[in-house]
Amino acid sequence: MATKSWEERVADKRSRLDKTIPAEWRIKTMPSGNSFMSYPKESGILSGDELAITESNATDLVRKLANGELTSVAVTTAFCKRAALAQQLLNCNLEFFPEMALAQAKGLDDYYAQHKKPGLECTMGYVAWIGKYDTEDSVLVTMLRKAGAVFYVKTSVPQSLMVCETLNNVIGRTVNPRNKNWSCGGSSGGEGAIVGFRGGVIGVGTDIGGSIRVPSAFNNLFGLRPSHGRLPYANMANSMEGQETIHSVCGPMCHTIDDLRLFVTSVLAQSPWRYDAKVLPMPWRPAEEDAARQKLSSGGLTLGFYSCDGNVLPHPPILRAVDTVVAKAKEAGHTVVSWEPYKHPYAVDLANRIYAADGGADVFNTLKESGEPAIPNFKDLINPTLPKLDINRVWDANLEKWHFQNEYLAKLRALEEKLGREVDAIIAPITPTAAVRHDQFKYYGYATAINVLDFTSVVVPVTFADKSIDVKDASFQPLSDMDKVVQAEYDAEAYDGAPVAVQIIGRRLTEEKTIAIAEHLAKLLGN
Amino acid sequence: MATKSWEERVADKRSRLDKTIPAEWRIKTMPSGNSFMSYPKESGILSGDELAITESNATDLVRKLANGELTSVAVTTAFCKRAALAQQLLNCNLEFFPEMALAQAKGLDDYYAQHKKPGLECTMGYVAWIGKYDTEDSVLVTMLRKAGAVFYVKTSVPQSLMVCETLNNVIGRTVNPRNKNWSCGGSSGGEGAIVGFRGGVIGVGTDIGGSIRVPSAFNNLFGLRPSHGRLPYANMANSMEGQETIHSVCGPMCHTIDDLRLFVTSVLAQSPWRYDAKVLPMPWRPAEEDAARQKLSSGGLTLGFYSCDGNVLPHPPILRAVDTVVAKAKEAGHTVVSWEPYKHPYAVDLANRIYAADGGADVFNTLKESGEPAIPNFKDLINPTLPKLDINRVWDANLEKWHFQNEYLAKLRALEEKLGREVDAIIAPITPTAAVRHDQFKYYGYATAINVLDFTSVVVPVTFADKSIDVKDASFQPLSDMDKVVQAEYDAEAYDGAPVAVQIIGRRLTEEKTIAIAEHLAKLLGN
Repeated sequence: MATKSWEERVADKRSRLDKTIPAEWRIKTMPSGNSFMSYPKESGILSGDELAITESNATDLVRKLANGELTSVAVTTAFCKRAALAQQLLNCNLEFFPEMALAQAKGLDDYYAQHKKPGLECTMGYVAWIGKYDTEDSVLVTMLRKAGAVFYVKTSVPQSLMVCETLNNVIGRTVNPRNKNWSCGGSSGGEGAIVGFRGGVIGVGTDIGGSIRVPSAFNNLFGLRPSHGRLPYANMANSMEGQETIHSVCGPMCHTIDDLRLFVTSVLAQSPWRYDAKVLPMPWRPAEEDAARQKLSSGGLTLGFYSCDGNVLPHPPILRAVDTVVAKAKEAGHTVVSWEPYKHPYAVDLANRIYAADGGADVFNTLKESGEPAIPNFKDLINPTLPKLDINRVWDANLEKWHFQNEYLAKLRALEEKLGREVDAIIAPITPTAAVRHDQFKYYGYATAINVLDFTSVVVPVTFADKSIDVKDASFQPLSDMDKVVQAEYDAEAYDGAPVAVQIIGRRLTEEKTIAIAEHLAKLLGN
Repeated sequence: MATKSWEERVADKRSRLDKTIPAEWRIKTMPSGNSFMSYPKESGILSGDELAITESNATDLVRKLANGELTSVAVTTAFCKRAALAQQLLNCNLEFFPEMALAQAKGLDDYYAQHKKPGLECTMGYVAWIGKYDTEDSVLVTMLRKAGAVFYVKTSVPQSLMVCETLNNVIGRTVNPRNKNWSCGGSSGGEGAIVGFRGGVIGVGTDIGGSIRVPSAFNNLFGLRPSHGRLPYANMANSMEGQETIHSVCGPMCHTIDDLRLFVTSVLAQSPWRYDAKVLPMPWRPAEEDAARQKLSSGGLTLGFYSCDGNVLPHPPILRAVDTVVAKAKEAGHTVVSWEPYKHPYAVDLANRIYAADGGADVFNTLKESGEPAIPNFKDLINPTLPKLDINRVWDANLEKWHFQNEYLAKLRALEEKLGREVDAIIAPITPTAAVRHDQFKYYGYATAINVLDFTSVVVPVTFADKSIDVKDASFQPLSDMDKVVQAEYDAEAYDGAPVAVQIIGRRLTEEKTIAIAEHLAKLLGN
């Protein structure tokens, strides 16, 4: 059918994407320097009001929209402008549609009546999918629209979605707004970059092995990886669809915990379980939140923490971040105890076997359709010559996962019996590195162990790497080959200023409680 | 390793099982006639008090135990005696352990201290598993013990568990206490038979394709198939473990709805989600129950119903049962509308492909270990020469299931929009036949479509087949080859008196509501 080469299809796509930016939003002279964070102000493209809007949080914007202080067109215009700058500076957008967004913002429902369907392209970083169009909105998008959200861009993801950096053959690499030499993370990396840049106020990511949490951490954002079944995923595109040993979940990335809660409550208020059979009939539970808050105010939390998972030791900035959060929690009177991460290396190995279960067939078949090559990062993960798992071995993997989860619960109960109190959450690294240099994301384990457990996790920004404090540990002895590779990457100079975060981990389906605890810890940190 | 033939191993097992019955509980002269229901009274083995105990419901027994009217030893003795009769008459027990039960009943914890582990054999109907012993209690058993339950027997199941009759090479066939020519159902058929016979007051079954609901229906019992994730399943034995496209779930079978609720609330009160990672942190929700009860009292329920799933027309007694429930609900002022079972033949085909996904490898490998032959019923279902599904086809099946589930929800919403009110539950057949004659259970679809949906289902006994009313339909035109086979089996004379039930189906994870509605309908029926 397709007679064009993959390179020609890419060129065509890029040219169409480029044309989505109106002349008045175009950057005349590209800024020099590595950081783009101050450029929106200097550009002259956004007005003072527009800068203020794009630097607000969603909760405030919703309030101002509700009482008439702001119009939806004004807000949408401001973010579209900033997203246009992001496209030119960060290379984070795969599809950009300010016109459609403004039409929606104006309440122009006749646009939809005329076009019958949203009609957006959905490339998801695959050359073969150029020219593939959405036939319907996902359940999540439908609900966010009903809640008043306006969509104007689909941001970039790595080819396959299975990588924690953002690189594909369609638009190339997306960079970190704080420093173009750093990755924006992945797989929801375009989303992390644009929200970090405030070209959007709440981003949506999916996470099967860190893909919400890593871009949140690398862009100084809060991020929620809810447990499977809490938020609707129906009608979304993905690779390896139907792989259900480790479920991909979707969740928000934003600048404040209030916005994170706004996102979740807005969706749950619409009974998503009536639309997506995988969603549990579990509305937002204020009682769970209240119970957690009572503990917070009395210094009555019990928190576990770990700095090393037994496979790879994090870089100095990350170790400092965990220490900082632990110290703040202790200062506030909470009980903080060391948690030995139970069999994490085993869980990481299990996750890797599951991700590679089809020998990459699903992804490589999509690449073959267009002839595009695999990105190097993906080849690191999954070797296309691997054999597929036999179905009985898939079932064995399902069982292994369940047994591991049950053993983990037993270890938690044992600690609780020893302490005589419930463990409320665990403080841990989410990556071994601060926002990583390009092509240097090698170890997924801090994220993936939590995916195997299907625990709730909230990313909390803590600090920035500081070359004067975070000096390289000269006495380091590697725990593993991977540890050696990761540790060798540390360079205090190169990482100076890079965002550093931790994750706050709660048991399965404890979103209300874990968000409340994360909010409290963020306040103790002064965020 | 094993040098004995499978026949020798079976002979040894049967002899050991036979010795579990004390001399004073042995039947001297086997009763003539097909029904055994009146035998316990005639046997002289049970005292009047013991007959009364075994004919009580669990809720009353719990009350009397609590206020000292009854002792645990008295209750356990009574049921052990009756279970011993059941073993001799129905052939329903795989492992029987009155001694251990009485020790537990006496509070003799030193029995466990001495033996260190429960130490029960777990054959699950496989010859290869003779001599395999439990190493620990399942989470469910642990919780039931804590709630005061006393265990004394493991009842029979079909080889593989994948069949709705109860036949294996270990102890042969289990029969229905109402008529030995009828099946007790399966896979939890020994449990259905013993509870139907009141050799037990609450039975526990597992259901991946009808295995709780069919024995409940065939033994005039209430049965609950909860949605996946509501009750703990960890550390239970099964075939095809790790197959998670259609989850097996566990649930109670009993004589009253009160007992069914007692079982569920007793388990949920113990926070099973802290022990089994698959269990949702969802305590019993009285608010859901109250909301349903408000509708009941005002005649405000909206119920769908169907009599035929588009594949196979049920026998006349079943059609009459659905009509009876519909008429009673209408009389009580509720709105009852016809529900067109959406794509049930597709769902049934999907379920069959999933059950056969490994080409029977898991089951046939276990048979090969001992050399025992497959039971004919299992061979009907899964041909051992079938190819295994490739992993990408397994993922496709997962997706197909999810899409079907979502479409089903959309159809329900469409009906609700038309009616302007919520559909509370659906009344439907659970089998196309009343308690079926041996080896005649051919069509699983009424049960399996609900497993594919993972909807909550409560079996409600309705009536008994009556040769004077339920005459064969001479004008019958088959919908399918299977329909022809099933319809040919109907014989008003042979089925006269056989138990007939319906299932009351609610959406996923609506146990509180669906139980409340089932209770109401049972009361309208005079149960």
